[in-house]
Amino acid sequence: MHPASEDDILAIVSRYFPAGHPSLLLNRGDDCAVLRPCGPLAVTTDIFAEDAHFRRRYFTAFDIGWKALAVNISDVGSSGAKPSGFSIGLTLTGKEDTAWLEGFCEGMKALTERFDMAISGGDLARSSLLNICVTAWGELSETLPRGLRRGIAQEGDVIFLVGRVGLARLGLFVLEEAGNDEEIAATKKLWPAACAQHLRPMPLAFEGLELGRFAMRYRLKDRLGLMDVSDGLARDLPRLLASRRSGLGADIRLMEEMLHPEVTLFCGQRSLDASQFAFEGGEDYALLGTCPAEAWPSLEKLFSDFSVPAAGLGTVKRGPITLNGSTPNSAGFDHFSA
Amino acid sequence: MHPASEDDILAIVSRYFPAGHPSLLLNRGDDCAVLRPCGPLAVTTDIFAEDAHFRRRYFTAFDIGWKALAVNISDVGSSGAKPSGFSIGLTLTGKEDTAWLEGFCEGMKALTERFDMAISGGDLARSSLLNICVTAWGELSETLPRGLRRGIAQEGDVIFLVGRVGLARLGLFVLEEAGNDEEIAATKKLWPAACAQHLRPMPLAFEGLELGRFAMRYRLKDRLGLMDVSDGLARDLPRLLASRRSGLGADIRLMEEMLHPEVTLFCGQRSLDASQFAFEGGEDYALLGTCPAEAWPSLEKLFSDFSVPAAGLGTVKRGPITLNGSTPNSAGFDHFSA
Repeated sequence: MHPASEDDILAIVSRYFPAGHPSLLLNRGDDCAVLRPCGPLAVTTDIFAEDAHFRRRYFTAFDIGWKALAVNISDVGSSGAKPSGFSIGLTLTGKEDTAWLEGFCEGMKALTERFDMAISGGDLARSSLLNICVTAWGELSETLPRGLRRGIAQEGDVIFLVGRVGLARLGLFVLEEAGNDEEIAATKKLWPAACAQHLRPMPLAFEGLELGRFAMRYRLKDRLGLMDVSDGLARDLPRLLASRRSGLGADIRLMEEMLHPEVTLFCGQRSLDASQFAFEGGEDYALLGTCPAEAWPSLEKLFSDFSVPAAGLGTVKRGPITLNGSTPNSAGFDHFSA
Repeated sequence: MHPASEDDILAIVSRYFPAGHPSLLLNRGDDCAVLRPCGPLAVTTDIFAEDAHFRRRYFTAFDIGWKALAVNISDVGSSGAKPSGFSIGLTLTGKEDTAWLEGFCEGMKALTERFDMAISGGDLARSSLLNICVTAWGELSETLPRGLRRGIAQEGDVIFLVGRVGLARLGLFVLEEAGNDEEIAATKKLWPAACAQHLRPMPLAFEGLELGRFAMRYRLKDRLGLMDVSDGLARDLPRLLASRRSGLGADIRLMEEMLHPEVTLFCGQRSLDASQFAFEGGEDYALLGTCPAEAWPSLEKLFSDFSVPAAGLGTVKRGPITLNGSTPNSAGFDHFSA
C-alpha cells in the first residue's frame, strides 16, 4: 500500500464528486466556492475524530466517511432545512492509501446522493490521528426563516421522538468489547442493528424536513421545537426544554415496546435497566421535539408515513425530569471530563 | 494550570463573542445557526494544524487564534467578498487552560472586530495535537455573482501583487532555527516584520473587496483574476494562470525594491538569491491577480490607496514562467510529499 499524495487525494475526490452542483455558482477548486442560497441558510459544524468519536479498529473507511457527514446532515435536518452542501477539513495521518480514500469517498457519496448535496471544497492536513471536520448547510423556507429549534417548549406540550435511542450506545459497547478482527466480525453478526446504528447512522433529514413543513402548515413555526439527540436523551432533553432557564422538566415514558429488541436482549443479559440504558444513550441521531397538545393528533398521523419509529414520550411540566415514574440517572457525555 | 472543561470553554467563547450578529437569523447555540445571506455566498475551509502549520514553541495562543481565522478570511477576501461569518471545529489536547483559551479567543476576536464577522458555532474534540478547522464565508454583490477567481487570465494581461512575498517564509525559517524561549524572543526582536508576518498575517480582505468593486466599476467581472498566495508564488502563479490547461506562463520581475529589507538582509547574509527566496515563499497571504493591460493604469492608481505595497509583476504570455529573465526553481509545498 502506497500512501496517497495530495494530488492523488484530490484526484480521487474529483472522481467521486462532480465539481458542479445546481446550488453552486462557482464550483470548488478556487479560493472559495460560491453558493446561491434560495433562502435562509442553516449551518452546522461537527468534528469526527479518531479515538474521540471512532476507532479505526472497527470503523471501515466507508463507515468513517459516512458518519462524519451523517452527524452534520442530522443537525441540518433537525432544523427543518433541506441539506444542500458541505465542506470538509480532512486531517489524515499520511498512511491512508488509495483504497482507503476510495472507501471514505464512497461512504460520503452514499449520503450526498441520497440528499443531493454539493461538496463545495475543503482542506487537507496531516497529523497523528484522523480528524474530519465537516461544515454542512441546508436551505430553509422563507416562511420558516429561523428553522425548527430548541427552547420553545411550554408546559403541557407533548414530547416526541423520531428514531431509536439506546441502539447506537449498544453498538459502541459491544464493538469496544471486541478484541480482534474475528471478534469484531462476530459482534457485527450478533448485534447487527446496534452496530449499524453506531457505524452508519442514517440522518433523519427527510423527517426533519417533513416536520418543518408540518410546522408551516399548522402555523407552528415558533411552537414546534426540534433538535437531534447526539449526546443522549438524558443530556439533550434538558437542552430542548432549556430547563436551566425555563425550569421545565417532563414525565418521560420509555417502555420496552419502544426499544429495539437488541437493546432489550442485551440489557436482559447484563441485568441492566433497558429504559435507563436507552435514556442515557448517546449518538442516537434521533429527532427529539415538542409540540402543543392540540397539534399532537395531527402530528401523530404524520408519523405513520415515516420509515422509522416515531412516538410520544410524555408531557412537558414544571419541575424535574422523571423516567417511567422515577428520577433517572442523568449522566452525560463530555469529551473534556476526566 | 487547570485544563478547561467543555462548559468552561463555551463560557469563555461566550464572553468574547456575542451570540448574535446582524447576519444571523438564529444565533449559535442550537443544532444549526441560521444565516440570512444578502447575495451569493463565498465559502472556504482551511485547517490550521499543530506541527503541520504551526508550532506551539513559538506561536502564542493569540497567534494561533489569529492565524487560524486569518488564513480563511484571506480566501474570502481574495474572492472579492465581504467576510461576514465563520464556524470553527476546535480539536484541543485537553491541556489548554483558561489563560490559553482566553488568548486564543482574543486572537480571533481582533480579526472578527476588524472585519465585523459573526461566529455561528462550531464543535469541540480532543486529540494529541491542536487542530483548528475554520469555515468562513462572505457576501458577494449580485453584480459580481461568482466573485473574483482564478483561471481567467489572457495573453498580455498584467500580473499584479498586493502585499509582500517571502517575508512569512523568512519568519518561519528564523523561528524554526530558534532553540529555546530566549532565542525565540531574540529572533522576534531581530526579524520583527518577518516573525509578525508568519505569526499574525493580516488578511487583505479590504483590498480584495476594493478589487471586486474595481472589477464591477470597470465591467471586468470576468476579466479581473484574483487569488491569495498561500503556497508561494512558484506554486500559486501557475494556478492563477491555469497553466496546465491554458499553456500560459509569464515573465515575472521581483526586484530588490519590491522585497522587504529583512528578506534582502537575510538573503545577503546567507548568500541566497532574494528574488528566488521570495518567489518560492509560502504562507504569504498576499493577493495575486491579473487584469487586462488597458485597465492597468486605473488599477495602479487604486493601489496608491492601499496600506500595503502593491505593484505589477509582469505580463502573461504563452510558454513557461520566467523570474527576472531566468527559469526559476519551482519547488512548492505539499504536506503529503515525503
